[in-house]
Amino acid sequence: MKLVSYQYQKKSGIGIVEGEHVIPLSDGISMLEVMERGFDVYAKEEPIPLQECQLFSPIDRPRKNILCVGRNYYDHALEMGGEQGVPEELVVFTKASTSIIGHKDTIIVSHNLTNQLDYEGELAVIIGREGKSIPKEKAMEYVFGYTILNDITARDLQKKHGQFFLGKSMDTFCPLGPVIVTKDEIEDPHQLMLETFVNGEKRQSSSTSKMMRKIEELISEISSVLTLERGDVIATGTPAGVGKGFHPPKFLKDGDQVTVKIEKIGELVNNVKFN
Amino acid sequence: MKLVSYQYQKKSGIGIVEGEHVIPLSDGISMLEVMERGFDVYAKEEPIPLQECQLFSPIDRPRKNILCVGRNYYDHALEMGGEQGVPEELVVFTKASTSIIGHKDTIIVSHNLTNQLDYEGELAVIIGREGKSIPKEKAMEYVFGYTILNDITARDLQKKHGQFFLGKSMDTFCPLGPVIVTKDEIEDPHQLMLETFVNGEKRQSSSTSKMMRKIEELISEISSVLTLERGDVIATGTPAGVGKGFHPPKFLKDGDQVTVKIEKIGELVNNVKFN
Repeated sequence: MKLVSYQYQKKSGIGIVEGEHVIPLSDGISMLEVMERGFDVYAKEEPIPLQECQLFSPIDRPRKNILCVGRNYYDHALEMGGEQGVPEELVVFTKASTSIIGHKDTIIVSHNLTNQLDYEGELAVIIGREGKSIPKEKAMEYVFGYTILNDITARDLQKKHGQFFLGKSMDTFCPLGPVIVTKDEIEDPHQLMLETFVNGEKRQSSSTSKMMRKIEELISEISSVLTLERGDVIATGTPAGVGKGFHPPKFLKDGDQVTVKIEKIGELVNNVKFN
Repeated sequence: MKLVSYQYQKKSGIGIVEGEHVIPLSDGISMLEVMERGFDVYAKEEPIPLQECQLFSPIDRPRKNILCVGRNYYDHALEMGGEQGVPEELVVFTKASTSIIGHKDTIIVSHNLTNQLDYEGELAVIIGREGKSIPKEKAMEYVFGYTILNDITARDLQKKHGQFFLGKSMDTFCPLGPVIVTKDEIEDPHQLMLETFVNGEKRQSSSTSKMMRKIEELISEISSVLTLERGDVIATGTPAGVGKGFHPPKFLKDGDQVTVKIEKIGELVNNVKFN
């Protein structure tokens, strides 16, 4: 099942994508309610054309900030190089929930704040139910589904601050979506092609098979510390090919379009606006 | 005005502290609603005895994680020494909103997770309304009030991970409250004694006058990056005297009681339980 949060002819809601259409679920429900109660309890309305829907982030306000795993692909850890290296320990930081935007929304930033705007295409895991100290073997039971996340980062702030939070938490710095693919549709989330394009130029091209810590480990390790809740989002890290990894670096500029594609999920497209 | 979130004889709600009593506001409202609409729109009920109320954290689920300012007191930055030093740049990290507990709740942790449990008494600023790119001169208009926060930290995890989030975000690691003192009651929030005691032994004793970045600067700098919202909590940093600052270090042990006192606000008391 592919779920979206849509607006069509001034009506917004949650719907199921089927081919070129969205099947709206009955009125006034939220994605969290659908996650809690399942799809079957809601009436299905007349299909509407997907092309004509505006798609919002499927999770617009998780109950805590986005949980992000740093340096979880070996090749990316290497390209970030001298400053950081490959971590033995789990690295987790957060992006403010206020930074979330949807598919086709604009990443807006000022040159007063950063001159090193960068992208990071990532597979995001959506947590389906509350859990604490979840053993690895049971971790997948807590997954509701998957979506795409672009961990937009001001590299200059990230480096200057040491703690990554501010440089990754500007308003609009977390494109997320557009669809949540439920876990039953993806047999192995560690066998998905992940690609990022800037203005059509391929920058990142890897597979989720290259994650150093797998989803089960991430859920188990993070939940050993804190309670995961329905709707929490775990961004699983980015592979090599971020702008900072090029010589010279290829940071994002005004007017750029960034597309993150993940096999079996879809693509997340956002334009960049410097003001 | 001092506001609490209380439970008394199986009834819970928001109330105003007056002397030894709590004056409950009319039913079913949240602290965020009171912050939005003001006190005057709610009926006031019969006073109940403060001593007999259980007090919850006055803000139990801010819309984003707790925003924490690192190394904002010179003497604390020095005691953290070689590893970190005094930052020129603003250091902000977050604590998961799931880590919040109230006055007299127990800090619960396992030796499997940490052997270096530490306290950090801090003045917390409660944001009263939404704002972005707030100029320093207007920053205080966005403050609703103040409370006490104990930034409980697993020093071993903090050091090992580099990013502070996990080591500061365990469930129960954010005692907060018990009262919010509205800003009109505190003429100068940068002239408050701040003390932390462990089993009655004074460990931290300083003044908020020693903050390197003042509240106005913190609000202005943080909001230059992200939108602050009603109910957001900014922890303004801790002075010298944390457990790690002693030689040998004085980390928290099973059964310890930690009390953070801030002048004109009150005290926040929590016991420690290792399991």
